[in-house]
Amino acid sequence: MSDTTDFGGDPTDTHDAIMCGTYDALRKHGYAGLSIQRIADETDLSKSTFYHHFDGKDEILLSFADYILEQFTRGLRIGSTGDPVTDLYTFLDLTLGIHPADGDSPNTEQRLGAYLELRSQAIHDPAFRETFTEMSEGYVDHLVPILQDGMDQGVFADVDPERTARFLLAIVDGIIVEVTTRTDDQRPLLWDALEAYIEESIIVAKRQQTDS
Amino acid sequence: MSDTTDFGGDPTDTHDAIMCGTYDALRKHGYAGLSIQRIADETDLSKSTFYHHFDGKDEILLSFADYILEQFTRGLRIGSTGDPVTDLYTFLDLTLGIHPADGDSPNTEQRLGAYLELRSQAIHDPAFRETFTEMSEGYVDHLVPILQDGMDQGVFADVDPERTARFLLAIVDGIIVEVTTRTDDQRPLLWDALEAYIEESIIVAKRQQTDS
Repeated sequence: MSDTTDFGGDPTDTHDAIMCGTYDALRKHGYAGLSIQRIADETDLSKSTFYHHFDGKDEILLSFADYILEQFTRGLRIGSTGDPVTDLYTFLDLTLGIHPADGDSPNTEQRLGAYLELRSQAIHDPAFRETFTEMSEGYVDHLVPILQDGMDQGVFADVDPERTARFLLAIVDGIIVEVTTRTDDQRPLLWDALEAYIEESIIVAKRQQTDS
Repeated sequence: MSDTTDFGGDPTDTHDAIMCGTYDALRKHGYAGLSIQRIADETDLSKSTFYHHFDGKDEILLSFADYILEQFTRGLRIGSTGDPVTDLYTFLDLTLGIHPADGDSPNTEQRLGAYLELRSQAIHDPAFRETFTEMSEGYVDHLVPILQDGMDQGVFADVDPERTARFLLAIVDGIIVEVTTRTDDQRPLLWDALEAYIEESIIVAKRQQTDS
């Protein structure tokens, strides 16, 4: 943040440009194929600019993980609509991309793939582990009040909100694994299965309808 | 398979030794930190033996993915006990490690981490994509008859067996993501949530008990 004048640009812009370039390069080449040169190729910046800001590829990627964490956290600040069912599906749209049947960006798979590649760095890198634990806890903090609100309104069944929130996050991550690592497209089927789970196990009205 | 005499060992043994070394090196160093030298360090073999069998790191890892695919497929050949609930939990024990509360190998997290690192290579590598699609389809082919059997016996609710099988696989993969990429241990909580899901949505007796 102290290097404002060195390359004539606002450092925030430069940082954003590096982050956007990292995203594009990660989607194109994957983590294993990533290099500073390939990230630079996606921007108007020189390689030396990168080395001025970062020590190397790993530091850029960790910073990128923090960057997407911030983007997602910003996305969660939408606030409640007052309808817990809508709020729950808005969260799922945000994390999984909207239901494919509703028309969806063709980039969803690439975006989810970039997320999973970064997240899998956490298996061996404690710094990534910290970032993604923080991201998940942000999601739990967002989901628990939605579930609690639904229970208070009598719309949701009497579930353990924290356990259900963490289970939903695991399902979201699992769908991302299936969607980004197979030769076919499982997203429509898995979205339907997720909706069926929510309607059977979380939404109380639907459950009562089926029972009667 | 044609290079039996070149280094005085059974080629199957050599291949197995390379695969075991790959597994150990992958658990220790992760995909990003992997090298032929580090794999060789985990075995009694020389680096030249590796280059005799494989063109490089990527080829070893793809071969390793096929190797674990084969191990898992062999694990699935146990056959049915006749009790679909037992068969379902046996499958989950095999893929997730047994419930932590039942006493579990401390290596489960490392094993799951090695799996997820390999699987995330499929995001950008079509050969890995093929292998893991084949592995998932093997799991579906194993789970669908268990679910169908449970429905025929009146033990399981009337579910869409294929969709439920694919959803269960997504849940398993999601639990693996949570378990291998966070600073804390979510496995006991997520195993409990998975059991609750199975008891509420799949096992019919439990559902009727709750309804009455």
